[in-house]
Amino acid sequence: MRVKGKDFRTVWIEGPNEKPLIRMIDQRRLPFEFVIHNTRNVGETCLAIKDMTVRGAGAIGVTAAFGMAQGVLEKDPEEAKKAIEATRPTAQNLFYAVNRVYEVASHSANSVNDARKEAEAVAEEDVESCKKIGEYGAELLKDSAHVLTHCNAGWLAFVDWGSALSPIYVAHREGKKIKVYVDDTQPREQGGKLTAWELQNEGVDYVISPDTAVAHLLEHGEVDIIIVGSDRIAANGDVANKIGTQVVARIARDFGVPFYVAAPTSTIDLNCSDGAHIPIEFRSEDEVLYKTGRTADGRIEKVLVVAPGSHAYNPSFDVTPASLIKGIITQKGIIKPNAEEIRRVKQVF
Amino acid sequence: MRVKGKDFRTVWIEGPNEKPLIRMIDQRRLPFEFVIHNTRNVGETCLAIKDMTVRGAGAIGVTAAFGMAQGVLEKDPEEAKKAIEATRPTAQNLFYAVNRVYEVASHSANSVNDARKEAEAVAEEDVESCKKIGEYGAELLKDSAHVLTHCNAGWLAFVDWGSALSPIYVAHREGKKIKVYVDDTQPREQGGKLTAWELQNEGVDYVISPDTAVAHLLEHGEVDIIIVGSDRIAANGDVANKIGTQVVARIARDFGVPFYVAAPTSTIDLNCSDGAHIPIEFRSEDEVLYKTGRTADGRIEKVLVVAPGSHAYNPSFDVTPASLIKGIITQKGIIKPNAEEIRRVKQVF
Repeated sequence: MRVKGKDFRTVWIEGPNEKPLIRMIDQRRLPFEFVIHNTRNVGETCLAIKDMTVRGAGAIGVTAAFGMAQGVLEKDPEEAKKAIEATRPTAQNLFYAVNRVYEVASHSANSVNDARKEAEAVAEEDVESCKKIGEYGAELLKDSAHVLTHCNAGWLAFVDWGSALSPIYVAHREGKKIKVYVDDTQPREQGGKLTAWELQNEGVDYVISPDTAVAHLLEHGEVDIIIVGSDRIAANGDVANKIGTQVVARIARDFGVPFYVAAPTSTIDLNCSDGAHIPIEFRSEDEVLYKTGRTADGRIEKVLVVAPGSHAYNPSFDVTPASLIKGIITQKGIIKPNAEEIRRVKQVF
Repeated sequence: MRVKGKDFRTVWIEGPNEKPLIRMIDQRRLPFEFVIHNTRNVGETCLAIKDMTVRGAGAIGVTAAFGMAQGVLEKDPEEAKKAIEATRPTAQNLFYAVNRVYEVASHSANSVNDARKEAEAVAEEDVESCKKIGEYGAELLKDSAHVLTHCNAGWLAFVDWGSALSPIYVAHREGKKIKVYVDDTQPREQGGKLTAWELQNEGVDYVISPDTAVAHLLEHGEVDIIIVGSDRIAANGDVANKIGTQVVARIARDFGVPFYVAAPTSTIDLNCSDGAHIPIEFRSEDEVLYKTGRTADGRIEKVLVVAPGSHAYNPSFDVTPASLIKGIITQKGIIKPNAEEIRRVKQVF
């Protein structure tokens, strides 16, 4: 998608097979600075995932796949697999992608080349899937639709297009007038920082709304449809996504606003019977206590925004019960969030 | 209540009747700086209410009462009344307090003295009411209770004790061990900035929780009871309070956690038949786009935290339907949120 009119992907790999370079947009520095971050080995790649230089379900998965290719090159794929899988526990795409590259390399006579090729295939499939999600999802968006989204499930969360934002981008390019209400998504503000930045670069009309305003918005008829992303979908249709997603879904039910999840089928984990079995990551309390932003004279500052000496509670994700979800928009079509449809869509090729 | 061990009120009046000084804790500078702000005339007092130097239903009311006394001294009570009533539209206490002082002055031969006396009576009644709310509310808190609150309805929002926090302070002084989950309360973070600061000064155990974590918290059984304040209570029991309160109430219903509102009866507006008739203030989008905090080296900075060029939606309050409220804790006891009990408690002296 576009950054000041130029096309970019979130993460990519370049250079010769024996000395590949993983390159990614440094998302910690958005929206104030646009910087490409490079990683040269598994250690650097793990750190980039852990410290959220790269974040978002699909982008984490593809970065992990590239990292696994680095691990094969470094001749310790088992160790690399373990290290990458220990970076972040919730996103299913990470485990899916690492496994794919690991399995191919394990059964290959030319494992370095084949691992990289497989990792690149994971990236291409991510792009294709997101594009298809956009096409299916765009059918849900009528002209002049008001869409609410939470967190960032845009192209920055994948390689291109995104999941929840892809239908918006497709509809916008089809000429539909779309307005997006962007939940600012505390504590890390990925809505206000990343989704807003993406929409602005694509020329989509949007307004940032505090998470706390969601009931007020829906009560006053401001929102026609809600689309969010997902970090893991359980076999019964329960969906883990950014903290606060479950809150939005419950408010949506109260006001009769349709609530959709958009995700490629790589997000589905058939080994998780239901949402209670999805591991939820707790992150540093500093994410709640501090905010980062730009001063009037252009400096980037991290500031303590609460009473000094306070502690904070910081679960990164919550689980939305399947019963609150109208449909899951996948690259294979829009399905109902139930065990049967989820098994079917996961297994169809 | 205590600030570093010393007793303070949120707002008070001092000096001779012909030259009174209104003094208030500057809440814009908390929790990083403790500064007393003075206003010498109606214009300065209106500005202090408008720019939230003083905020919170009761504190606004008492400041407005003091401001009305200034208006009588300045010999233009009609103009003063209009100016003060135009500062902030939602808090009922403001209209209640201004009217009381205005009425007394209108029928007095010694209006300057009587206006001040009436304003001081409003302040004293605020303190007494809040203390009684604490005593009634404390009966709801068992030892080791986990209490969630939203925004700041502590002593800073009144003159002393507060409404939603008063039961916590009373229970704490009775020796009960209470833990408070403090919603950070975006966009202005009155939870993380003010409630946290109050609780710390009183030695009450607390942790700051992002607003987005509320469903996760309640789902995991972390909260026994929720108490919030109110800016206006309609005749049918609908309650206007800080944006996001309605969200918390809906989540509380889903997880069976009792949701209480604490407010003096001066918050009740019998002329508002229901919540749809409560005027909701929209404030500057800058409250969403910028955050204020302290840098590592101690400077206070206001930083833009979202994509530059973004706009924001910023309703300050929402309305919680009476059906979601278990009870309203008033200075005259805990009542059910229905028309009959509300009329009764408002009319009993």
